[in-house]
Formats: sequence, C-alpha cells, structure tokens
Amino acid sequence: MADKINLLSLDACALRERLASGALGALELAEACIARIEAREDEVRAWAWIDPDFARHQARALDAQRQSGRAIGPLHGLPVGLKDIIDTAKIPTENGCPLDAGRVPVRDAAIVARLKAAGAIIMGKTVTTELAYMHAGRTRNPHNPAHTPGGSSSGSAAAVADGMVPLAVGTQTGGSVIRPASFCGVTGFKPSFGAIPRTGVLMQSPTLDTLGVFARTPADAAMLAQVLMGYDAGDRATTPAPVPDLHGVATSKPPVKPVLAFVKPPGWDRADPQLHAAFAELCEALGDQVFDVPLPNAFDQAADQRARINFAEMARYYHRYAKNRDALGARTRAAIEEGEAILARDYIAALDWPDVLYAGLGEIFARCDAILCPAATGPAPEGLEFTGDAVFNGLWTLTGVPAVTVPAFTAENGLPMGVQLVAARGNDARLLRTANWFHGWLSEVGA
Amino acid sequence: MADKINLLSLDACALRERLASGALGALELAEACIARIEAREDEVRAWAWIDPDFARHQARALDAQRQSGRAIGPLHGLPVGLKDIIDTAKIPTENGCPLDAGRVPVRDAAIVARLKAAGAIIMGKTVTTELAYMHAGRTRNPHNPAHTPGGSSSGSAAAVADGMVPLAVGTQTGGSVIRPASFCGVTGFKPSFGAIPRTGVLMQSPTLDTLGVFARTPADAAMLAQVLMGYDAGDRATTPAPVPDLHGVATSKPPVKPVLAFVKPPGWDRADPQLHAAFAELCEALGDQVFDVPLPNAFDQAADQRARINFAEMARYYHRYAKNRDALGARTRAAIEEGEAILARDYIAALDWPDVLYAGLGEIFARCDAILCPAATGPAPEGLEFTGDAVFNGLWTLTGVPAVTVPAFTAENGLPMGVQLVAARGNDARLLRTANWFHGWLSEVGA
Repeated sequence: MADKINLLSLDACALRERLASGALGALELAEACIARIEAREDEVRAWAWIDPDFARHQARALDAQRQSGRAIGPLHGLPVGLKDIIDTAKIPTENGCPLDAGRVPVRDAAIVARLKAAGAIIMGKTVTTELAYMHAGRTRNPHNPAHTPGGSSSGSAAAVADGMVPLAVGTQTGGSVIRPASFCGVTGFKPSFGAIPRTGVLMQSPTLDTLGVFARTPADAAMLAQVLMGYDAGDRATTPAPVPDLHGVATSKPPVKPVLAFVKPPGWDRADPQLHAAFAELCEALGDQVFDVPLPNAFDQAADQRARINFAEMARYYHRYAKNRDALGARTRAAIEEGEAILARDYIAALDWPDVLYAGLGEIFARCDAILCPAATGPAPEGLEFTGDAVFNGLWTLTGVPAVTVPAFTAENGLPMGVQLVAARGNDARLLRTANWFHGWLSEVGA
Repeated sequence: MADKINLLSLDACALRERLASGALGALELAEACIARIEAREDEVRAWAWIDPDFARHQARALDAQRQSGRAIGPLHGLPVGLKDIIDTAKIPTENGCPLDAGRVPVRDAAIVARLKAAGAIIMGKTVTTELAYMHAGRTRNPHNPAHTPGGSSSGSAAAVADGMVPLAVGTQTGGSVIRPASFCGVTGFKPSFGAIPRTGVLMQSPTLDTLGVFARTPADAAMLAQVLMGYDAGDRATTPAPVPDLHGVATSKPPVKPVLAFVKPPGWDRADPQLHAAFAELCEALGDQVFDVPLPNAFDQAADQRARINFAEMARYYHRYAKNRDALGARTRAAIEEGEAILARDYIAALDWPDVLYAGLGEIFARCDAILCPAATGPAPEGLEFTGDAVFNGLWTLTGVPAVTVPAFTAENGLPMGVQLVAARGNDARLLRTANWFHGWLSEVGA
C-alpha cells in the first residue's frame, strides 16, 4: 500500500493517472482520505455529513467496474466533497440551517448525477455557512484553526486544503468560491454564469448563484468542472451548447506568452498593505507580461447593485425560512429583511448592470489573456464569526465572467493569499490555460 | 385600373397572387389604400403618421424591382401599417405620448427591417394608446365611430378593419392585439412569447410584451407573422431556432377533424349575455368537435399576477416618463404609481406564474387542437375613453401561449365579436391551421 501522506499530496490529475494504470485502487485512495479525515476532522470540522463505509462501498464498486472492463468515467475513483446545499438523494442535505435539520432529498442535484456517471466517489457533504450566506458554520482554517476558512463554501475549501479530498464543489453568489479558496490556499474556479446547471442546488439568488470547484491546481479544477458543465433543462441559465475541452485546453501550452491586465478593483484601498506590497512585487516579476489598467467607473456601482439583486431574490427564495426567522442567524435575517424592503423597480433596474459592466470590459479583454487582481482583501481574518470581505469577488459574480484563484503569497502570519484571474464570458478554457501557466510560472520564480 | 373597392375587399394572400402574376401593380394597390385612407381617415382616425408620397415612392421602387427580375420578397408590394410604438428610421415614432412628440428614431425596429427586406410597403404609423397602455388615442371604431376600437393597438386594428391596409402590426402586453381585433371585426394573432423580436419597440413590460398582427384572415396573419418571426440578438426572449412554415401549415387541411376545448375563463360571468348566448349556439353547431373543460383554479390568480408584473416593469421602464408624470394620462400615471409601490419579492414571485399556469394546461392541450374562448367580454363599448376589458386576454399573454381571434358574431348593435383560439407554446402554425379551418367553417355555417 502506498504511503498515505504521499497519496494526499498528489494532485487529482496525477491520482487519475495512477488509478488508470492500476498503480492505485479507488479503495486505497478512499482509505487514505478517510484516514486523513479521521485524523484531522476534529480540528478542521469540514464535514456536515460523512460515512466512511459509504465511501468504501462506492470505491469497491468502482474498482470492480475497472477490473470488469466496463466503461470508466473521467473521474473514476476520485473522491469529491459536496457543499451541503447540493442535494444528494438519500443523504442529508441541511443547507447549514437548523430549519433544514434532518432534511433528506429524494433526488440528486444534476451535478451529483454527473459526478456519479463520471465515476467520482461522493465522499460526503461539506459544511456551508447558513443558507450559503454570511452566518458562519463550524469549519476552521486548516492552516490555523483560530482563523476563518472563508465562506460560504467553507468545508469544501478546507477539505481540499487539508488533503482530505483532492476535489470539492461549492457555490458562489458573492465571493463564496474564490474567497475561501484564497483563505485556505487552494485553487478555486468559478466558471462563467450558466456554465454549470444548478438544478437541485439551494436557490439563493438565481441571477447570481454559480457553481464552482476547489482543487489543488488549475488543471485539476478544469478536470472536475468539465464533468459538471453543460446544459440541463432544469436550469434556464444553461444553454444547449457543447462543453469545451476544458482539461485539454487548460493543460496545453499558451500559443504566445500570456499577458495580464492588472486592475485595482473598488475596495483596493482598504485591502491589507501586505497585499499591496505582494502585488507590486508580482507585477515587477511579471515584467512586460502585465500592464496596469483602470476598471471602468461603472464598477463603483457593482457592490450595491449586486447586493440589491442578491437580497431581493433572497427575500423571495428564502421566504419559507423567513417565516421562522428567529431560528436564523442575525446576518441571514438582516439580509432577508433588507431584501424584503427592496422595490421591484429598483430590483429590475439592477438587473441591467451585469451587461452594463460587462460591456465596459471589452477593451480590456481585447488586450490581455486575463485580468489579474487580488482574490481577497488579505489573508483569512482571525476569528470564526466573520467569513471575510467579498468585495473583490462580487463584481465578477455580478458580471458573470469566469474567475479562478491560485495560491500565490504567504502573509506574515503564515496564511495563504490567492491571486485572481478573470476572463471574458465563455472563455473558461482559455482562462484555465492562463491560470495553469501562471501556476507553473509561480513555482518557477519560487513564490 | 382595377376597381378600388374590389381591391380593398381582397385578402392579402389574394393580393399577393395578383401582384405576383402582374395583374396588379404595387403602385396601383398603394393608390387604392391611399384613396381609402383619404376618404375615411377623418372619421376613423387610425393614423399617427402617414405620407402618401412616401408610400408611392416605395411602391414604384417595388414595381421596378419586380420588372427588373431582382429578388421578390414574400410581402412584395403589400402595404402594412405599424403601431406607433415600433421604431421607424427617419419617421416619427411618438409612442402615443406627448412627451415623445417629435421623436424620430435613427434606426428601424428589427421587424421593420424584416418587412422592408420582404418587400412590404410601410404605409405609415398607426395610432396607439398612450405608451401602449389604457389612456385612449383618437381612433374610432370603423363600424360605429361612437364606439372604441379597443386598445392599445387601436389604429392597426381599425385600419385593417376599414380596408385602409390589408395588414398591420401591433403589440399585446395585456390584451392589445386580440381585443381591438375582436372589437373591429378582423383577425388578430398574438404568437407565442418570444416568437417575434421586440428590438426597437417601446418596452413596457419585457416579461409580457408580445408583437402581433392584424389581417383579414388567419392565412393572411400567418403570411405576415412568418416574415416577422425569428431570432434577433437584441431580444433575449427570441431563440435561434428555425421559423416554422407558418403560412404553408396554416393554409393546409387539418389531417383530422379539429377538436376544440371550450373554456369559460375568469370574468366569464361579467361578460355580455349576448356573448353567453352566442357561445352556446356556437358550441351546439360545433357538435362533437367541441367539449367543455374547466380551466385550472390557478387561473383565478392570473389577472393579479399579470398586473403585478406589468406595473412593476412599467415603473422601471417608464421611469423616464414618470419624471414628467403630470403630462401623462390619468390611467398611465395610476399604473406607474401602482408599479412603483410593488416590492421586489412579490414581483419575483409573480414571475413564477407563467410556468405554473402553463403546466396546468398540458392535459387540456393533449385533448384538443385549440382552446376555444371569447376574445373580449362583448362588442366594443360605447365611448372612446375606455378601450375595453382585457380580462379574456391577459391570462394568455401571461402564459405565453399563442392566441388568435377570428370575427364570428354580430351583436345587436351591429358591432362584431370575435372568437379566440389558443394553443400550446410554439404551436403557432398548428393554431393558425385550426383558425383557418374555423374561419372556413364559420362561412359555411353562415355565421
């Protein structure tokens, strides 16, 4: 049996190769993950539901399938964690909310069916903040348990960061994939709006809700996202178009040297000075591969307009929770109540902003492979109550563009800080190729 | 030169044949229309803008084109009236609103470009109620000038009914195509939501706004609508799917004897007793080709939910008019003010209703070729202030299903009353085939 520590340090692409060659069995990998979870879960608290025997059962079946010569899916034998707002048939899905305690869905979410068909092992459900908003769950940052892992996909980010699973799925309505990925030091990828169907996932704000993935590397993220993407009749944001070869493109060499456009988004001035310094160094090291460009002024409106859409839709879709609002956390309640007061005409007007903002990015995207900007305002803040500031994420969620974060810096307190890359809508594959290049470049320059 | 009265009594399909054979010239037809308008416009007041020389100019060019052997469009030489909320480049488009007096668009609406490409003569702009809502314009019912022509597509309905043009275009957000068509005694067709692009048309309520057509017969309506339908990038409600052969299907014989499902929609009890009697007779005459069926109870909600969507979106999209609300009619102002008070969560909740209602129709549509119901609550009411009750139209607009009205009855006061046929979303061609059959059946039974 291979050394467990070694196994858990491998990325998902490498694990897939070993599984494919027979050097590694799905059960062996699952046992390594289970052992890591058993050793670390008391400190990290990443899981809302987990059953080692359920994972073993899937792993054995997948190993048998491989030996019998039956079809092997693209994630065959790879364990995946799922944020606990993603419905899983017969497995509790409690949305991080006491009002949903004991809730067991009848049906799998669309992406869970895709994961199963691809041969993934459903390792368990990861902790989410309450209803995927700001009221923190019990997860702690694996790098320092006194710090938040970020939210709302707290458990998914922490589980991947801690080596408990190589892959996990989360969602982002404000900054719930990119921020926790940055805080936990893993790759987080939020695809273009509408790329991954949300059928069977808790609906907070359908104009904004976006599924995303956590992994060790951009190539791993591409491998997982490719399985999740594609049209589903249950989600009107998806379109019946072919899914790009995300993994193939992401792992290919950029045809020319990538060029990045460095922007300082609104909120830059209140970011951690360590971040300012780190970006100055990064841009210097990138040399002629980066240029500075201001964001259009319209982006000053992004945070307010995004919040308006988010809260108004929350007031609508969380109405069933609001009936028992005393059972909810104060942050959740306050957001719903803010939403309940929003007028329809202001909400409808806010819906124009994604396209207004996006139109303003055309000139920038024409000149670069990706926008370069911070993933969060600094390292994970101390304390578990506040999951961190999403000011560098909400603008991209609202605009519907794909975003990826790659761990790049280490703060003085030893916590990681991510760099965020952003591309034009639909350019997910090219963005991941740029992120893959950037990931390699970082290790070359020894960041 | 052919007898003008005769020409104007021909339907558009017959005119097209004469134009194609050379028996009739476009200029000759345009002159006949112009003569009719000159004779009758003082009484009917159908036109917001008209210039006989502009029509003659187009007609001459179209005649020359036909003689030169260049491509001939499907509406080559046919005059069309356009509701004055449809933008026409260099031609005033005043939206029936004093605040838009003198407004001249730079660009044609998408459908105007399609009409020109199809060889239609843009005869002029027809009177709309103020901003296509309930504040009446100056048009009078051609059958009796003391009665409303209905609204909001008042001039389009009246112009076709009076023989001024064979074809006209209007819009329906509540009941603005079907109701005036019924009041004026012409065929009105409101296609499925999203069938005809609204790019360049005044936006009142994008969830509801639907372009429709006025003609003498269902076959004529099919001929015109086919030219207008199809994807346009400027209107997200349209989809890149092929346009059905509307005219070919509409004029084909139904493969089996059509069966209609007679429903009494909410509001039936307050309809004119003449209408109750007429429908009883009609159903008796149809015999085994009609069955009674109740509408699902959910339709009791349709009027309120439709109004909520309409007014909330009006408050947003007529905000620029609301800044000068004292210049608006009382009905327009009241609707905007009702919309300004609607909460976002109630509006968002209302958006669920089209699909809820539509789901309830599946069982009915499975058993019939079309739903049969009244087009309006009775004949056109006396007076010009009130454009009539749209209670039998709003439910179908909200549900997004195609609807067509065919003149069927004559009230005691000599005014026409239409019958409305409704089909499943996307079944526009089959609906028009059923309407074409019904139109023929009516003349056989001597209605």
